[in-house]
Amino acid sequence: MTGIPETMKAAVLMGPSQLEVKEVPTPRPGPMEVLLKVQSCACCGTDVALMENPFEGQPPFGEFTPGHEYSATVAALGETVDEFKVGDRVAVEAHLGCMRCRNCRNGNYTACLNYGTPKHRANGMTANGGFAQYVVNNINTVHPIADHVDFEEASLVTNLGCVLYGFETVGGYVAGEHVAIIGPGPLGLISAQVAKAFGADRVYLVGTRASRLNKGGDTGADRLINIHEEDPVEVVLRETGGIGADLVIESSGAKDAPMTAIKMTKPMGKILLLGIPHEPVLMDLEDMAMKNKSLHTVRGEGWSNVARGVSLLGTGKISLKPYVTHSFPLDEVSKAFETFVKRIDGAVKVVVKPND
Amino acid sequence: MTGIPETMKAAVLMGPSQLEVKEVPTPRPGPMEVLLKVQSCACCGTDVALMENPFEGQPPFGEFTPGHEYSATVAALGETVDEFKVGDRVAVEAHLGCMRCRNCRNGNYTACLNYGTPKHRANGMTANGGFAQYVVNNINTVHPIADHVDFEEASLVTNLGCVLYGFETVGGYVAGEHVAIIGPGPLGLISAQVAKAFGADRVYLVGTRASRLNKGGDTGADRLINIHEEDPVEVVLRETGGIGADLVIESSGAKDAPMTAIKMTKPMGKILLLGIPHEPVLMDLEDMAMKNKSLHTVRGEGWSNVARGVSLLGTGKISLKPYVTHSFPLDEVSKAFETFVKRIDGAVKVVVKPND
Amino acid sequence: MTGIPETMKAAVLMGPSQLEVKEVPTPRPGPMEVLLKVQSCACCGTDVALMENPFEGQPPFGEFTPGHEYSATVAALGETVDEFKVGDRVAVEAHLGCMRCRNCRNGNYTACLNYGTPKHRANGMTANGGFAQYVVNNINTVHPIADHVDFEEASLVTNLGCVLYGFETVGGYVAGEHVAIIGPGPLGLISAQVAKAFGADRVYLVGTRASRLNKGGDTGADRLINIHEEDPVEVVLRETGGIGADLVIESSGAKDAPMTAIKMTKPMGKILLLGIPHEPVLMDLEDMAMKNKSLHTVRGEGWSNVARGVSLLGTGKISLKPYVTHSFPLDEVSKAFETFVKRIDGAVKVVVKPND
Amino acid sequence: MTGIPETMKAAVLMGPSQLEVKEVPTPRPGPMEVLLKVQSCACCGTDVALMENPFEGQPPFGEFTPGHEYSATVAALGETVDEFKVGDRVAVEAHLGCMRCRNCRNGNYTACLNYGTPKHRANGMTANGGFAQYVVNNINTVHPIADHVDFEEASLVTNLGCVLYGFETVGGYVAGEHVAIIGPGPLGLISAQVAKAFGADRVYLVGTRASRLNKGGDTGADRLINIHEEDPVEVVLRETGGIGADLVIESSGAKDAPMTAIKMTKPMGKILLLGIPHEPVLMDLEDMAMKNKSLHTVRGEGWSNVARGVSLLGTGKISLKPYVTHSFPLDEVSKAFETFVKRIDGAVKVVVKPND
Repeated sequence: MTGIPETMKAAVLMGPSQLEVKEVPTPRPGPMEVLLKVQSCACCGTDVALMENPFEGQPPFGEFTPGHEYSATVAALGETVDEFKVGDRVAVEAHLGCMRCRNCRNGNYTACLNYGTPKHRANGMTANGGFAQYVVNNINTVHPIADHVDFEEASLVTNLGCVLYGFETVGGYVAGEHVAIIGPGPLGLISAQVAKAFGADRVYLVGTRASRLNKGGDTGADRLINIHEEDPVEVVLRETGGIGADLVIESSGAKDAPMTAIKMTKPMGKILLLGIPHEPVLMDLEDMAMKNKSLHTVRGEGWSNVARGVSLLGTGKISLKPYVTHSFPLDEVSKAFETFVKRIDGAVKVVVKPND
Repeated sequence: MTGIPETMKAAVLMGPSQLEVKEVPTPRPGPMEVLLKVQSCACCGTDVALMENPFEGQPPFGEFTPGHEYSATVAALGETVDEFKVGDRVAVEAHLGCMRCRNCRNGNYTACLNYGTPKHRANGMTANGGFAQYVVNNINTVHPIADHVDFEEASLVTNLGCVLYGFETVGGYVAGEHVAIIGPGPLGLISAQVAKAFGADRVYLVGTRASRLNKGGDTGADRLINIHEEDPVEVVLRETGGIGADLVIESSGAKDAPMTAIKMTKPMGKILLLGIPHEPVLMDLEDMAMKNKSLHTVRGEGWSNVARGVSLLGTGKISLKPYVTHSFPLDEVSKAFETFVKRIDGAVKVVVKPND
Repeated sequence: MTGIPETMKAAVLMGPSQLEVKEVPTPRPGPMEVLLKVQSCACCGTDVALMENPFEGQPPFGEFTPGHEYSATVAALGETVDEFKVGDRVAVEAHLGCMRCRNCRNGNYTACLNYGTPKHRANGMTANGGFAQYVVNNINTVHPIADHVDFEEASLVTNLGCVLYGFETVGGYVAGEHVAIIGPGPLGLISAQVAKAFGADRVYLVGTRASRLNKGGDTGADRLINIHEEDPVEVVLRETGGIGADLVIESSGAKDAPMTAIKMTKPMGKILLLGIPHEPVLMDLEDMAMKNKSLHTVRGEGWSNVARGVSLLGTGKISLKPYVTHSFPLDEVSKAFETFVKRIDGAVKVVVKPND
Repeated sequence: MTGIPETMKAAVLMGPSQLEVKEVPTPRPGPMEVLLKVQSCACCGTDVALMENPFEGQPPFGEFTPGHEYSATVAALGETVDEFKVGDRVAVEAHLGCMRCRNCRNGNYTACLNYGTPKHRANGMTANGGFAQYVVNNINTVHPIADHVDFEEASLVTNLGCVLYGFETVGGYVAGEHVAIIGPGPLGLISAQVAKAFGADRVYLVGTRASRLNKGGDTGADRLINIHEEDPVEVVLRETGGIGADLVIESSGAKDAPMTAIKMTKPMGKILLLGIPHEPVLMDLEDMAMKNKSLHTVRGEGWSNVARGVSLLGTGKISLKPYVTHSFPLDEVSKAFETFVKRIDGAVKVVVKPND
């Protein structure tokens, strides 16, 4: 591959939560694949989780580079690829799937039935990811971005794709509806912006930190509810005339949040789960059943919603810039994660730039 | 009204769980209403619940006749009604709704936003029901039945309508799919029959009583799983190649059943809740989210599925006769409920015939 | 009714296309109804059509006042109405339906099976409409508007409701998609604005008049195609990489437009018909079938989309002001229609203000 | 490949409508592929069309073997394949798609955007098909059949898959509905059987030949309408109380059938197009729009409906045996097509058995 170095720098997971930047061979793209030169790769809570406790199907310590939220330029084309050309600016989605189980065949590749086996592929989870100078992606997971969209913003588009997948899952049509969002983390903040962008009547954002809530207020939320000061269920019911919100998005992952979500949902309304509690939680199914409520989940960013996301960035309908708060070179990847996890200095999303 | 007696016999709820058969004035139909002469009215778990603890909007003790599952002949027509004629054989659905909230306006009348107020109406819940010689129904809740469908069977069609509403809620298309049902009560048994009738590949029925399971085996279930003998999650996963069921219907109302349902659901699969646990239950939302599973509920029998149900009885596609195990005259309504609740003599559904 | 005059001025249809302003009795609201004092009523192509050739179920000449797009203040409440209070500012939708056929029961009231019979009601079509000082509406067809939304704009919300009903019919989720619109009439122009507001990637607007196209360019369309200068099929295919638009909205009613729409639709794409050709037209069903395309229609503004529309006006997400080009008092209603029909002075939507 | 002969017999298309049985090299499966020993391959109208006028992307004369409806035994496995084992009895679907365009990625592989290019693959259309002793299939297009399903019946499952794809496209839930079918060809006859199997209230079958209509009457249709004797629109409207059918399936391909379909469709009803007219046809879009009707198409057998189809054959829910009227050895493939096209001796579906 002309102009591609034989080796590159990559952050390799050497043990639980232990990232080390090492010199490794530059990978080569096969058929239907492209080699990407990574421009920006964002830290995600999923990275933190899988670095601590490896996921099913994850390569062993010493052989795995995480990172599934990245933007890049196309560096080389594998066989048969004419969908891209070298130099194209692109963003990615994580899940390729296996392209051969019933779910993947029918477009539900984030629910691949071969997850955790060698047939499955998700960059940064079961294959190497973007905390490296180069990475190989199947073309189904690569999407061109507009010239004016910067790489830092573009590396967050997986988050937008996940939120959009959630919206599509619950129907995608929220015009004139009341939307309540619990948890002003990255997905919650983006959900507020998306809800407003798609014409929601009123967007309620529930959280505990004033700084995060205010960021939500700046980017789409109409009504901020700090649970240290107000009862979110009481507020949403009162301000919707006792009816509740048409759509409630729970993105905090907190143990009691699903119950709160149920209580503030309108009869016939929907709950979308973006935050994941790691232990079983109590749910009031009687309330759900007596009022015909439903609960929907998404994993990752399905149904090509990353492609929809890059379009929304290109038209300026959605901006992810407000959420990129910090940037580090690849050598400081561990510091990047520390900043992200501890929310140092108001960190929301933290990116690493492997080729700077 | 020619030929209609001024007074009639009706079972009136005089106190908690206290039904008394009394002579009361025969009601008169208003515009858009018909007077029905009740032929068969079935005992339902909901009756038992609301007789013990009155529901929101239920008339006071001494003024209320329960019963929402009945078949009848049309005895008189209210103003403007030309959709029926006197003598028509009919079955009913319980929920009229209010015809003026947003949910009712859009066809979601079982999730009426005025539930519990005088604007709302559900016969046998917030208006008088069918444990009486006559009852008045809005024509939207009345459906003609074929000549060869007997009244006892027809009085169970609300159950079928509820199950069908559940199937429509989760898409209504189960051809070639694996369907697992927890709880061989009336709704569970009917679900098994419906799943098989609509082309499910394999229907698993999970329960604890051999007699009920066997009834399910006679009417649609392919694989009976007695949880005293086998682990239902293990069986369903093994017999679906480790993948799980496309659709899991939980109709037992048992506390741990929702968790069992989650575990046996395929990635991207759906859970339909027909049984209602009366206290909050633990749910593994991490499993649901990581595998893109969703949870759907129905209340009652919406979207005119009772009309679909009477068609299925008329064509013989579905038979409810196997579930009608006992019949009593109105004077023995309390004995009917005792038989139903205690499952005396293998009771499944018990009907009362007020005009015999 | 306190403060309501016994008689009022109303435009009565005296013969084909003959409107005459007369003094008639002020109507009185019944149960579930409100009396509205009309503030603005817009001329619509449907009015023109039904004044020339009365629709099925339309009252006879001499007894009928047309007008189905209006805004008003609530002047009096019928029995049982507590959803509104006198003085509320409101907009309306035309179709009540019959509230008793299967379609209405299930929320599909614009496809009422009793259309044309006395059971059905659509203000301005089968019941008196808004070209009068007062009109009576069932509360299901009345929606409150925000204080800052002016009456002229609000009287156009039926158009927005129709467009939104169309979007909901085809899924309602156009984020990142290519949308092509044929015909820059009121519905076409609003469609362009809505498509862009909901995040369409690129909106193509096809027409023949530069002035109309430019209005579309000002309010959402990205690419204007004047068919006197360019071949719209060729442009859309070229600019979508040979694939076609995900959604094509035909709102011109022109004879050859459906064929054009088919040709510019992507495989698996959808065509939404908002313009109605009055004679059978040729369609290439082979193209549709070989490429899995579908054709969707809407009549009027269903599924409470007028409520969604008033929300979008209230939040400022959509503005209908650019389309209100002319205003007349009730006495000049005929002149208003002439201006509308002949597009005098660049007329797009023309309103009549009966109480000015 | 052990036990696989180096050469095999195959019917090669040598010129327009000219099939010749020749000895050619046996193909070899690549990764994700299996080699199939064809047991039965059915003649289809699409074969007739593409043999006369080659489709886009079809291999040149002298190099192409048609046939896309076949059943087989697995003869050899390509690399990585553990989903099948040698000897498995299977049926196939035709369209693999390209696995790399947006439509294929999202499961809409029958509307592949690369159709006609080398990236696309549909056996028997753009790659070699089943009128040969062996054929290679991607595993996504291969489905195991139950032991008791015979190969002749199984080779028709593509037709069933197409019909099921149509049903899924229009919602898949026809319980209690009226379904009218125009054209008692193979797809129309199967549609009647499927509609009845899924619980349709009444199935109307419209045709011109008594023998075909009677076959429909034997396998699901309730009401046979011979257009030489009755007006189908008049019959369907009269027998549905003036309302029309909920679902109308046009499978005749006749020029005036789409117009007939529109007229007999209920307001809010759906039309499914399975028959393809090869020239533009007149359609009454005013009727469609005024009554909210929609038109849906399918191409081939998408969304894994062939897998659903093999399940329905396995459970005995659907039988395709009544439609297999003739069988020929591979050497008589031309006679098989003649029998099929001229409907000699009441032919419905004619199969060829290459290994007999």
